[in-house]
Amino acid sequence: MQPIADRPPTAPATPGDERWRIRRTADDLERIGEIESIFALSNGWVGWRGALDEGRPYGMPGTYLNGLYERRELSYPEDGYAFPQESDTVVSAPNAALVRLWVAGEPLDLRTGTVRAHDRVLDLRAGTVERLTEWISPAGHGVRVRSTRLVSLPRRPIAAVRWSVEALDAPVEVRVCADLLANERVPERGDDPRAASVLTDPLTAEYRHSEGHDGVLVHRTGRSGQRVAVAVAHLVDAPDGFADGVDCAPDRLRLSVSGTLRPERRLELTRFAAYECTPVDGASPQDLAGQVVAEADAARADGFDALLAAQRATLDAAWETADVVLDGDDELQQATRFAMFHLIQAGRADGDRTIPAKGLTGNGYDGHVLWDTEGYVLPVLTYVAPELARSALRWRYAHLPQARERAAELRLPGATFPWRTIGGEECSGYWPAGTAGLHVNADIADAVLRYVAATGDREFLAGPGVEMLVETARLWHGFGHWSDTGAFHLHGVTGPDEYAALVDDNVFTNLMARRNLRGAADAVERHPEAAARLGVDPAEVAGWRAAADAVFLPYDRKLDVHQQTAGFTHQPEWDFANTGEDDYPLLLHFPYLELYRKQVVKQADLVLAMQRCPGEFTADEKARNFAYYEARTVRDSSLSASPQAVIAAEVGHLDLAYDLFAEAVLHDLADLGDKTSDGLHLAALGGAWLALVQGFGGMRDDRAVLSFDPRLPRQINRLVFHLRWHSHRLRVTLTPDEARYELPDADPDTGIEVWHHGERIRVTGAEPVTRPMPPVPDPGPEPPSPPGRRPQVKGRAPS
Amino acid sequence: MQPIADRPPTAPATPGDERWRIRRTADDLERIGEIESIFALSNGWVGWRGALDEGRPYGMPGTYLNGLYERRELSYPEDGYAFPQESDTVVSAPNAALVRLWVAGEPLDLRTGTVRAHDRVLDLRAGTVERLTEWISPAGHGVRVRSTRLVSLPRRPIAAVRWSVEALDAPVEVRVCADLLANERVPERGDDPRAASVLTDPLTAEYRHSEGHDGVLVHRTGRSGQRVAVAVAHLVDAPDGFADGVDCAPDRLRLSVSGTLRPERRLELTRFAAYECTPVDGASPQDLAGQVVAEADAARADGFDALLAAQRATLDAAWETADVVLDGDDELQQATRFAMFHLIQAGRADGDRTIPAKGLTGNGYDGHVLWDTEGYVLPVLTYVAPELARSALRWRYAHLPQARERAAELRLPGATFPWRTIGGEECSGYWPAGTAGLHVNADIADAVLRYVAATGDREFLAGPGVEMLVETARLWHGFGHWSDTGAFHLHGVTGPDEYAALVDDNVFTNLMARRNLRGAADAVERHPEAAARLGVDPAEVAGWRAAADAVFLPYDRKLDVHQQTAGFTHQPEWDFANTGEDDYPLLLHFPYLELYRKQVVKQADLVLAMQRCPGEFTADEKARNFAYYEARTVRDSSLSASPQAVIAAEVGHLDLAYDLFAEAVLHDLADLGDKTSDGLHLAALGGAWLALVQGFGGMRDDRAVLSFDPRLPRQINRLVFHLRWHSHRLRVTLTPDEARYELPDADPDTGIEVWHHGERIRVTGAEPVTRPMPPVPDPGPEPPSPPGRRPQVKGRAPS
Repeated sequence: MQPIADRPPTAPATPGDERWRIRRTADDLERIGEIESIFALSNGWVGWRGALDEGRPYGMPGTYLNGLYERRELSYPEDGYAFPQESDTVVSAPNAALVRLWVAGEPLDLRTGTVRAHDRVLDLRAGTVERLTEWISPAGHGVRVRSTRLVSLPRRPIAAVRWSVEALDAPVEVRVCADLLANERVPERGDDPRAASVLTDPLTAEYRHSEGHDGVLVHRTGRSGQRVAVAVAHLVDAPDGFADGVDCAPDRLRLSVSGTLRPERRLELTRFAAYECTPVDGASPQDLAGQVVAEADAARADGFDALLAAQRATLDAAWETADVVLDGDDELQQATRFAMFHLIQAGRADGDRTIPAKGLTGNGYDGHVLWDTEGYVLPVLTYVAPELARSALRWRYAHLPQARERAAELRLPGATFPWRTIGGEECSGYWPAGTAGLHVNADIADAVLRYVAATGDREFLAGPGVEMLVETARLWHGFGHWSDTGAFHLHGVTGPDEYAALVDDNVFTNLMARRNLRGAADAVERHPEAAARLGVDPAEVAGWRAAADAVFLPYDRKLDVHQQTAGFTHQPEWDFANTGEDDYPLLLHFPYLELYRKQVVKQADLVLAMQRCPGEFTADEKARNFAYYEARTVRDSSLSASPQAVIAAEVGHLDLAYDLFAEAVLHDLADLGDKTSDGLHLAALGGAWLALVQGFGGMRDDRAVLSFDPRLPRQINRLVFHLRWHSHRLRVTLTPDEARYELPDADPDTGIEVWHHGERIRVTGAEPVTRPMPPVPDPGPEPPSPPGRRPQVKGRAPS
Repeated sequence: MQPIADRPPTAPATPGDERWRIRRTADDLERIGEIESIFALSNGWVGWRGALDEGRPYGMPGTYLNGLYERRELSYPEDGYAFPQESDTVVSAPNAALVRLWVAGEPLDLRTGTVRAHDRVLDLRAGTVERLTEWISPAGHGVRVRSTRLVSLPRRPIAAVRWSVEALDAPVEVRVCADLLANERVPERGDDPRAASVLTDPLTAEYRHSEGHDGVLVHRTGRSGQRVAVAVAHLVDAPDGFADGVDCAPDRLRLSVSGTLRPERRLELTRFAAYECTPVDGASPQDLAGQVVAEADAARADGFDALLAAQRATLDAAWETADVVLDGDDELQQATRFAMFHLIQAGRADGDRTIPAKGLTGNGYDGHVLWDTEGYVLPVLTYVAPELARSALRWRYAHLPQARERAAELRLPGATFPWRTIGGEECSGYWPAGTAGLHVNADIADAVLRYVAATGDREFLAGPGVEMLVETARLWHGFGHWSDTGAFHLHGVTGPDEYAALVDDNVFTNLMARRNLRGAADAVERHPEAAARLGVDPAEVAGWRAAADAVFLPYDRKLDVHQQTAGFTHQPEWDFANTGEDDYPLLLHFPYLELYRKQVVKQADLVLAMQRCPGEFTADEKARNFAYYEARTVRDSSLSASPQAVIAAEVGHLDLAYDLFAEAVLHDLADLGDKTSDGLHLAALGGAWLALVQGFGGMRDDRAVLSFDPRLPRQINRLVFHLRWHSHRLRVTLTPDEARYELPDADPDTGIEVWHHGERIRVTGAEPVTRPMPPVPDPGPEPPSPPGRRPQVKGRAPS
């Protein structure tokens, strides 16, 4: 491909501030799968990967509907009791984003001919992907293609694309085929255990219909019993003499437009797609078809510009709370907004809808929901879009019956939520790192408690909240046991660190279980009617409190550090001296036999405990623990950098914290894990916000109040972020000298209490409260990371 | 089916002492799969399951050749580094034991018509299965069928059957088809993780040829690259007027004989089958065909009676050492001989040949070799047939290169032998109970050391022995680590008890590793030339000795018992009160999540350590440990009863020991584990001998001398057993009053030293040495087993 660097850049359709947009050009075609993820658009219901309109070249095409999946059989070389026998796998809905183009009979393919320009821009304020391509076909015909696509944030079923082609210099015959394509082939995946399984032809055609330029396809899945309908309505603006027609097959609906295009003339095609998905007994194929046809028609009647305007308005409102201003580092400012954009996109307020680990941006992890959601995404959304957190928690509640059944199957009391799932059943095929990760239950309880504390949503607590808290508390109480010394233990579990498994008394798990038990006890005492409904009596509550009080926390008195799990500090050390750069991630080069028994940490575990349960540790313990575990944590997980950044900041190692924040926020934009092509890592993106707000903002929320111990790194001149707290929107502005707290939307006589470096302050709508930033005490030398593993993003200077 | 109990029993072909034979009748047809295993014949090279000659009804037909297998892909729901991607699976060789019979057009099938008699006898001295059936077809035609089959112990490739049919009352038209059948269909298996996988059509026909009554089929496997040839030569003794012919298809060679049989006349057909198997590049199909044809022809030339005579002579010689006389309990006398018969059958002295967990009696565990061989079978064969032990150890040595490669893959030094295999590669598909069971390496080293001590085979030690000892010692030394307190630890392994996994400092593993390290050190010091060859220097040896000396043995000072693994006694207790009878085996009703973290023991682990390494424990420790673990051991494994019996006897609980012995020795005859249909449990059968000889005979061999602390249970009046020790055969005769030691074959002036209850005595060929049996001290009340789990064989009164 001819380099385009020496030619004047063609301005993208919408000029804009680089801190508000992501741009990719023809230079990036090698990384096409990664870009498809980065440019993915979603409204929490429909997700369009950022594949090229013309369909080729492609990395991994994908159109996802939240909750659309198929079930596939799992088989084990050696089966075991209660090993899941089926797993949910995300499948692509029919792809409505395809506008294929033939130029004098040759398909537009950027790998052929000459690319004169190729710019694609993800506009974070407009909520669109704009694209401009100038291409000379191998036979010498030049065309300019523009498109704008969006997945409508305010209008659940709708995605749309406006696409046009012009002849560059001479008349040329063009043919345009706007396809709606079901069972689109996707490439086979490699052996990496983190990749997805791929089903062939998961959808069975049930109904199709076309009329005029428009049409609808209805399909169903097999085992999961779901029905999906997609309608497309078009506006075609073609020069005279163009012919068009619609062809409708079971798996493909195609609108073809063809004719000869003269220079200065343009063929424009606008497509409005509407998606619905129900259980097969929810609506007949014809019913569902009628529904999506009406939705697509309505969107067309309003027009593409109306969708654009509504998109912008929705985002403007979202950014009011979600935006984080980071002065001093444009690259990370851009990346932070990219992260927040995708978090906003990933959630939906309606009904019981959650956020898979990759959102709707790819099929990595089979499209599963993991603890990433409650552990890393909801702690952000609770403060910037609490209605999305509520929806995700209601989704968990909707699957509480399956969690109860799973606990019974495991012969445990209460409920155990699945480690991986789409439809609510446990889908983890490796139990030591799945079923044994019981902490997911405490993570869910923690998310409930945080949501209720931040919003004051008593209705949620009295209903779904208390029920989830009670059933998870029952699990912990029944799973744990008492030792002779009066301590309460949780043995044989797996904590966050996946380079250990089936361990005893994981501090993170134990502290989170404590929070879960106490939260349940508090909730039933506040809601006696719920207690009665759930059969909770005072003796049971007393048992929870006793267990919570007695939870065992292993500690190495000689080293004066907490043990991540009992005995951790007595395990053999990892031989970092003989571990090469190519040996990372370790899980691809060493057996679990080696990883599990050694002091090597994949991802923050004790450090995460210090982030989530800060009140359980003294400042000195935090500093010592951080130094000990920093030296043993290799960050082979995208979940690691953020908690490390938060605690690094707390203990005063601000340069290290900043580089850890950079690693989290750039995880996908720089494809640090080499897996972005499978979809974005929403936990890393959520973690970026946490690194800023909890790390440099010093925000803590474990005591149901908001406190801040801000400490800015030298790289940031000004940091502005917002939090919703009950009915208020708090703005926090940090500069090296001063912290400012304000309620920009509040009446002068209403307000909230927050803490600033140990001082309780009241913030009202009347005027901002400012406090000086105390100096950060010298924490001494930075604790070493494992050799070669200090965070550093390629192309960036380390701090 | 009509009961036959009220009719006079038809005497089987060979009348005999019930203590030397196993008989089954038509009453047992329900348990046909189990009987196929019990009546399996083998010479360690060819194995014929005891299926009915006529092929139906059947449980699971099977003809096995030692080492004939196919490789199949393994797939994991979540893959991991160094998870085996393929597994070996035993496949059936062509079945030459089929003699189908049609009686007036109706196939002989005992589920139809009337069975007047059906007796099958496994004759433990003749080494044959004799069979007599009288059957009235649905149309009323009566026939008597007799057969005798054998798999020749002295003549490796040969198996043979002599089969005849007579008309009972009236002339009848019969058709006999003697089939040689490849790719015979076998039934699908259930979900039990212990069952085998079944491949369809694993053999591809390469060559076939027939001439006269005889023929040969040659096939090959796919991935494993093996070629198998089977020739059949026949003798047909038919009345006049019978027609015959041979039909040869790729997967079936059929000799048909048909005609009208008058009463008092008999059609007799004798088949001589010869089997060979080589790598595909070892011999061409035609070569191999020629070889087996010659072998079958030679056997026919000698005749069936000659095979019978040689079989008897071989067994007479084997029984001289292998027989155990147990006066006082005819049922267990019979069962003991049954056990020894199958152990003799399972091994072969030639070349590098080992003994799979099921021998050649079934396809359970996919036909894999497990640690059962070195742990439970070789400790017997070393003393009763040391040439078979040598062969099995040479087989391990032949696969040392693969064990070195596996260690490198696991990033460990030395060699790690596979947990499950046929061809030498690791085939375990669940690593926590496979790869992590590193003790298999120490079990192999232990078997080497025992074999060398018992035989004085210096040539073996200097060659394969020292090399295996060194490479396994290197593994332990590299795998373990030193703690600050100067102890040497082995963390993250799985010991014998499969209701625990990935534990730290398993006492069994640690003590066996100690023995391995010291054994390797001794061996290289005795063979400096081998040390040089293997690159062992004195520093390395010193390291092994230091590690061996410092091996950590976890001990609970409060309870005054050893911990099976570090922390075991602090794990939660199993809730036996709420465990029902139907909940066993626990692994089919509880998740590993529950089993692993609790004090519930599947099979002897610490108790096995006390059996293997008796010098590491005081008598008091043994008594306390035994009582502690007896109460927590559920014996869900066939490997458990024997070690428990040995230690129960040592600590004086002789009734319990006797019932545990009964459970071991009847494991297959009474199908206690409900899995005998998959093949016999050779470890349980070997364990029965160990229960007698080590339990009641009190034999110990861990200090490279033979010692005896005999103590007879009240159920045994006289116990006689034999042991080979260097060039001698020692006979030990125990009665309640006296122990007699003699060397029946020795010159008067040669002899050996043994220990009797702490007294060193010299036994020569001159005359027996007798010593009194000291009284067994009162051990106090019998320690309780878990509720409902005290050993008791159905139909037997508990002791």
